[in-house]
Amino acid sequence: MVEKLVYDFAEGNKDLNDLLGGKGANLAEMTNLGLPVPPGFTITTDACRVYLDTGSQPPELAAEIDEHLLKLEGTMGRQLGDPADPLLVSVRSGAKFSMPGMMETVLNVGLTDESVHGLAAQAGGDGGERFAWDSYRRLIQMFGRTVCDVPAEAFEEALDEAKRAKNAESDLDLDAGDLRGLVATFKDVFARHAGRDFPQEPREQLDLAIRAVFDSWNAERAVLYRRQERIPSDLGTAVNVVAMVFGNLGSDSGTGVAFTRDPASGRQGVYGDYLANAQGEDVVAGIRNTVSLDELEQLDKASFDSLMRAMETLEGHYRDLCDIEFTIERGKLWLLQTRVGKRTAAAAFIIASQLVDEGVISLDEAVRRVTGDQLAQLMFPTFDLSDEPERLAQGIGASPGAAVGKVVFASARAVELAGAGERVILVRRETNPDDLPGIIASRGILTSRGGKTSHAAVVARGMGKTCVCGADALDVNVASGQFTVDGTTVSEGDVISIDGTTGRVYPGEMPVQDSAVVRYFETGEVGDDALVVAVHRLLSHADERRVLKVRANADTPEDAARARRFGAQGIGLCRTEHMFLGERRELVESLILADTDTDRQLALDALLPLQRKDFEGLFTAMAGLPVTIRLIDPPLHEFLPSLEDLSVRVALAEERGEDPGRDRRLLAAVRRMHEENPMLGLRGVRLGLVIPGLFAMQVRAIAEAAASVGLAGEDPHPEVMVPLVGAVQELETVKAEALTVLDEVDNTPHTLIGTMIEVPRAALTAAQIAQAAEFFSFGTNDLTQMGWGFSRDDVEGSFFSRYLDLGIFRVSPFESIDRDGVGRLITIAVSESRAIRPDLKIGVCGEHGGDPDSVHFFHEVGLDYVSCSPFRVPVARLEAGRAAIETGGSDSR
Amino acid sequence: MVEKLVYDFAEGNKDLNDLLGGKGANLAEMTNLGLPVPPGFTITTDACRVYLDTGSQPPELAAEIDEHLLKLEGTMGRQLGDPADPLLVSVRSGAKFSMPGMMETVLNVGLTDESVHGLAAQAGGDGGERFAWDSYRRLIQMFGRTVCDVPAEAFEEALDEAKRAKNAESDLDLDAGDLRGLVATFKDVFARHAGRDFPQEPREQLDLAIRAVFDSWNAERAVLYRRQERIPSDLGTAVNVVAMVFGNLGSDSGTGVAFTRDPASGRQGVYGDYLANAQGEDVVAGIRNTVSLDELEQLDKASFDSLMRAMETLEGHYRDLCDIEFTIERGKLWLLQTRVGKRTAAAAFIIASQLVDEGVISLDEAVRRVTGDQLAQLMFPTFDLSDEPERLAQGIGASPGAAVGKVVFASARAVELAGAGERVILVRRETNPDDLPGIIASRGILTSRGGKTSHAAVVARGMGKTCVCGADALDVNVASGQFTVDGTTVSEGDVISIDGTTGRVYPGEMPVQDSAVVRYFETGEVGDDALVVAVHRLLSHADERRVLKVRANADTPEDAARARRFGAQGIGLCRTEHMFLGERRELVESLILADTDTDRQLALDALLPLQRKDFEGLFTAMAGLPVTIRLIDPPLHEFLPSLEDLSVRVALAEERGEDPGRDRRLLAAVRRMHEENPMLGLRGVRLGLVIPGLFAMQVRAIAEAAASVGLAGEDPHPEVMVPLVGAVQELETVKAEALTVLDEVDNTPHTLIGTMIEVPRAALTAAQIAQAAEFFSFGTNDLTQMGWGFSRDDVEGSFFSRYLDLGIFRVSPFESIDRDGVGRLITIAVSESRAIRPDLKIGVCGEHGGDPDSVHFFHEVGLDYVSCSPFRVPVARLEAGRAAIETGGSDSR
Repeated sequence: MVEKLVYDFAEGNKDLNDLLGGKGANLAEMTNLGLPVPPGFTITTDACRVYLDTGSQPPELAAEIDEHLLKLEGTMGRQLGDPADPLLVSVRSGAKFSMPGMMETVLNVGLTDESVHGLAAQAGGDGGERFAWDSYRRLIQMFGRTVCDVPAEAFEEALDEAKRAKNAESDLDLDAGDLRGLVATFKDVFARHAGRDFPQEPREQLDLAIRAVFDSWNAERAVLYRRQERIPSDLGTAVNVVAMVFGNLGSDSGTGVAFTRDPASGRQGVYGDYLANAQGEDVVAGIRNTVSLDELEQLDKASFDSLMRAMETLEGHYRDLCDIEFTIERGKLWLLQTRVGKRTAAAAFIIASQLVDEGVISLDEAVRRVTGDQLAQLMFPTFDLSDEPERLAQGIGASPGAAVGKVVFASARAVELAGAGERVILVRRETNPDDLPGIIASRGILTSRGGKTSHAAVVARGMGKTCVCGADALDVNVASGQFTVDGTTVSEGDVISIDGTTGRVYPGEMPVQDSAVVRYFETGEVGDDALVVAVHRLLSHADERRVLKVRANADTPEDAARARRFGAQGIGLCRTEHMFLGERRELVESLILADTDTDRQLALDALLPLQRKDFEGLFTAMAGLPVTIRLIDPPLHEFLPSLEDLSVRVALAEERGEDPGRDRRLLAAVRRMHEENPMLGLRGVRLGLVIPGLFAMQVRAIAEAAASVGLAGEDPHPEVMVPLVGAVQELETVKAEALTVLDEVDNTPHTLIGTMIEVPRAALTAAQIAQAAEFFSFGTNDLTQMGWGFSRDDVEGSFFSRYLDLGIFRVSPFESIDRDGVGRLITIAVSESRAIRPDLKIGVCGEHGGDPDSVHFFHEVGLDYVSCSPFRVPVARLEAGRAAIETGGSDSR
Repeated sequence: MVEKLVYDFAEGNKDLNDLLGGKGANLAEMTNLGLPVPPGFTITTDACRVYLDTGSQPPELAAEIDEHLLKLEGTMGRQLGDPADPLLVSVRSGAKFSMPGMMETVLNVGLTDESVHGLAAQAGGDGGERFAWDSYRRLIQMFGRTVCDVPAEAFEEALDEAKRAKNAESDLDLDAGDLRGLVATFKDVFARHAGRDFPQEPREQLDLAIRAVFDSWNAERAVLYRRQERIPSDLGTAVNVVAMVFGNLGSDSGTGVAFTRDPASGRQGVYGDYLANAQGEDVVAGIRNTVSLDELEQLDKASFDSLMRAMETLEGHYRDLCDIEFTIERGKLWLLQTRVGKRTAAAAFIIASQLVDEGVISLDEAVRRVTGDQLAQLMFPTFDLSDEPERLAQGIGASPGAAVGKVVFASARAVELAGAGERVILVRRETNPDDLPGIIASRGILTSRGGKTSHAAVVARGMGKTCVCGADALDVNVASGQFTVDGTTVSEGDVISIDGTTGRVYPGEMPVQDSAVVRYFETGEVGDDALVVAVHRLLSHADERRVLKVRANADTPEDAARARRFGAQGIGLCRTEHMFLGERRELVESLILADTDTDRQLALDALLPLQRKDFEGLFTAMAGLPVTIRLIDPPLHEFLPSLEDLSVRVALAEERGEDPGRDRRLLAAVRRMHEENPMLGLRGVRLGLVIPGLFAMQVRAIAEAAASVGLAGEDPHPEVMVPLVGAVQELETVKAEALTVLDEVDNTPHTLIGTMIEVPRAALTAAQIAQAAEFFSFGTNDLTQMGWGFSRDDVEGSFFSRYLDLGIFRVSPFESIDRDGVGRLITIAVSESRAIRPDLKIGVCGEHGGDPDSVHFFHEVGLDYVSCSPFRVPVARLEAGRAAIETGGSDSR
């Protein structure tokens, strides 16, 4: 039941942006602060949603608009469409989340063939005449385009024609008479395209304009924008109906934008642009050059001072950088919009830290105002653009980073060149799953089609690979091995540079600079760089406030050491399978081909000292901190050649009359071990239960390594983690074997035995499993794969982009935890296992451990730690702090 | 906290079998019925479990035994070990579930070198001497074997030696002196093997015997038996200490077994065997021939009459067939044991129906007394064994049915011969995953090793294929293509017959007879066969009582018609993918290879009329009943040749300088569509959302078929089911498209649109999905695969037998629903979706729909229907009725 569909500005406030949109809520806030805001009212998003769902406005709406319009007319002392002294209004969209330029606005609503004369008279003099006809032609133009889909060019051509006729440079050179003629022409254009005359009933103009703003929510560009920005598609927009004020009433009028501090650097001061004798759209159109606010001070000291006072009020009130749109009408300042201003990632940290110094906000608040995504941006290398070079093209920054390499057009060629040690950039019109090998081989991907949800973008983000999409000026010709852009031709082998953050493409090799923030993490030295100082300060505070510990996923001593420098408090996941690759592959083959217990044990015995050495390095690098080692997880045939390769090799050898030799034996083994769905096959704990001695060898290596590191005076904290457990009996069986081994090795330090929770059934029976486990670690990758029933490798390239386009996902569930489904499994497991074993240590070691949204979720459900890649550790630290502050700070974990 | 560890027989009753074991509970029941039971007491399973868990008896136990022993001595007027007139007791195991012969019993406890004389005196005369020494040597023999692990052969050799010395045929020919000598020999044997003298303290004998019975719970054979019979391993056994009565006191004594009616046919009358002058173990040992109970009437009319009265009392009390063990001691009848008797599947139905006729039980009770497993047994073909032929061997009946075929020893050979149209039986020592193709190609599998949980057994049961395991007399020589058994040699190509129910193996071709029960289902004719009459009666009553509807999974009109004859109330799952095979495969290839929208649409247009025809047949066969059609589910590359085959074909063609032609294009497509884990890839609803027009074509075919069948005067009830939905948005998108198509086709009858719930996330978000679905059908196969994270095809052969051996599964979760994990997903989905949409129709169409245990679960959680293979429909009907009766009958569904 919809309660109230229209709010006067005096009735709202900034917290009602769900209902009133960002613009409406802030207009209300400013009104209540006593700032000079033109009076008006806001039609709620509720009304819009009813309209969008049912195709017609809620029946109560018309009467509510009547009532508020009457009040507005009373306040202004004018009536809409009054021939003598008309009230004009603007009709502006305003959604909850800013969607700049995506939706519609109609100005000057209320002008008709009659009232244009009244407006002229009220404005006064010859200037008044010109102003009135100019305002009228603008109304017909915007209304025609917005409400009746009249092509913009039709009006522009008519305007150009009028200027040509007058030999005018600018539309300012057109006089009142010219504009009066233009109005007549525009009305003809309108009638021809819209199939009706321009409406002369002001109330009809208003209603149609409101409806057009509602409709613009579903305009194609708005839909695309929301998808890219992950804004829900069902919010709808509010509509603001505001009394017009005019910046185009002469040289004592004008319009501008202002910032309360520099949105790029965060410096305090007066920043903004002003354009005299203009309406808002002129600033955007860039038809004349704007001036700085310092010049406004010269032009109109009184208005400038008012603006300064208003800015002070706003920063004091919002306690943050604000940006403002204003109009000066004959020396009187009006504020048309304000919001907390957008800023760069670096400025976000610097401003937040400054505001603390100024005593405006607390450190808690400062931490809340920066995000892990911003911190992550600051950790990518960037191009050193001290003097910004000429760009080759501009696309969409789809996956951040700075990549330099030779252009290639075919996946196979990318693989070939990369194999020869070259850095390559794969350039395609768009990519498809066939291009995967090329994407993997390349430093970066550049496409001429598709946006942030295209195949290339999704896959590249998944791999952390730099990607620029939708550089639509590129004409890519794969056959000829060239692309052209604005007359420049780039051929295969030419070097280009692409910036995955800004979407910019440069010719040649641009110098890449490392991130100052990463340098700080690596060295621990803060120095006097304002950004590094701010990052250090806020991250340190986040560390103080967070209750989630942050560990890293690391398989080598080098990764472990780096993770420790980045702030990791242990290893949450050491994958042991990489330790079976390289020169050890042959031992694994022997293990697999073993026909007898003796042969198998020989292979295991040979692996034991190698594994022990691996673990010694890890325990040393992480001395004093926990190291969670996962027993071998993937199917063994991953260590063998592929069935396809072997089949062809054996068939060809036989065809040539040669002896396939060992290949034949390997092929038999690979065939025997072939699984249709290896992810759902013989792996993890199942391997350990089927292959005698495999897990025991690993546990022994862990125990011996920990014992020797301990004897060397370090302090190892081993944790043995069993993968893929679905039933407590599996864990019990492995645990019994592991305890025996731990018991046999002298000087083994206290070693926890726990399990991954990555199979849905494990989450559903967590209360049983908790009876045998000393810790849980959620494997959110597998939990997502099995919970949704899709394999990441197979589906990200095949249907994820389609799913993102259809809005089935707002974001890939591999990137950010799916709260409703996978998250629910986690909630069930945490609450039911803790009910059985309150001291159970619970963490997460999937890639979600480094994702900001997911970190908040893990904090909310009460995990003890998250574990993520070393590079994401600072992001997780920051977001864990933010999550703790948001939920009211520390608890007893 | 353990309350009470020992119960006097007078303190128990038949419902305490958890605590007292089946034997103890029934002894108590008989005692309280006033029947002649020797006095005694039962030590509880609680006491046993404490002993098994901790390795020592609960501290209170000794005192409780003292107390009850004292009371028993009072009742009997004798004391344990009294030299003049000793009380002797038997110490018998007795678990909750009958485990015949698996655990231990010790008789005659209380005899010592002294009290043997007292016993002789009490028994009287020369017969008394002989009786006492015979009893003593039996005690030493059983006690030695059971308590001290003295090898049985050691005693047997000594006995044989004594008989040889006396030139005796039977041990009855040994006189008191001989037996006295034998006791001395036995005591030597005992001391030599046990490392101690035979205990002369009766109370020590008793304690050790009790402990030995406890230990026998974990004897190897008992563990194996429990695993095969799916008896939980943690129940423990009770121990019954009973005053001895003696059937070996002369010709006026004896021992026997009796049934209150014929356990094979169910006929009423007097059935049983009697052996004069013997103890229980002599009957089992078969050393002398037993006589029928009619002869007992001649020998000892009084005892016979007592037995008849006792049997009448028992049947009246238990209201079922009882079997009884009894002993007559010098003309006085003693009952040593009773239980509700085991019976064949056919007898179960016949007896239950008879008891209704006799007014003993209600029809509800009769339905509860038969099981779906029994009904399923009655539906397999059997060998016609009117004159039972000579057997070749005896194994374990691991998967029921009667299979005849030529012997083969290699998987490849089985495939080859089956391909040539031969019926084959695969014979192996044991099978492994390499044998899968051969198992699939064979009529039956015979192995010489392994039991009901071996690889062969698990795989064969999964496929419904006849299997006999562990025929250990077979000497299988794969290399020479022969097996020998008892001197007979069977070579490859020879015909044998195997019975998967009884485990029997016959030479040559045995005549197979179809099941009379199936004939009744097929024809609907009851006739006068007692079994068919009983099945008809009980199944009809189950139909009356059940609230679950039963549908069938059927893809063809023939299957649908058969299912209808078997009682199906609709089709719960029609898989459309088989409709894309055969001659249509080429169209599917064209669909997959289509480069343009036009080519794709051409392929779809060609498929449309074929699909329409498929559906017309189904709607006609199921007129008036619902037909649920699942839109195409499997990955499209399943319709293409395998990557391995194509790679080899293309490589060989190129090697030979030939043009691979279309194969090259196919290979590219197969490579592009190759998925590491196709089960978790592009299939189900994902296909429908990615391939434009595919689902629309299917929905159009359904609508047009339903319309044309409707116009022909039939009454089609189509239900469109979307597979693999994980998020409500997927269903909404498909539903919108489907509704458009349904709207476009004239005369479409009302058509429901619903979804499978087979992805864990679908169950977890069922409340959301219910908003878009008109019905749910649980796909418990996929739900099990994804919930556990294993793929049935990959794992049943690779680690399931190991998991069953380790006790991780008690039964495969693909066979019977995993209540804790998968079942919990179902419970969540049902309760949360019904909260949103109380009228949501919910069923299940996985193979669990025909599994008895699972049907009970589906009834309990409140589903509307189960759907299973046509052959399982009667089983599901019966079990649904039983489930309804057990939970108190019909509710409002």
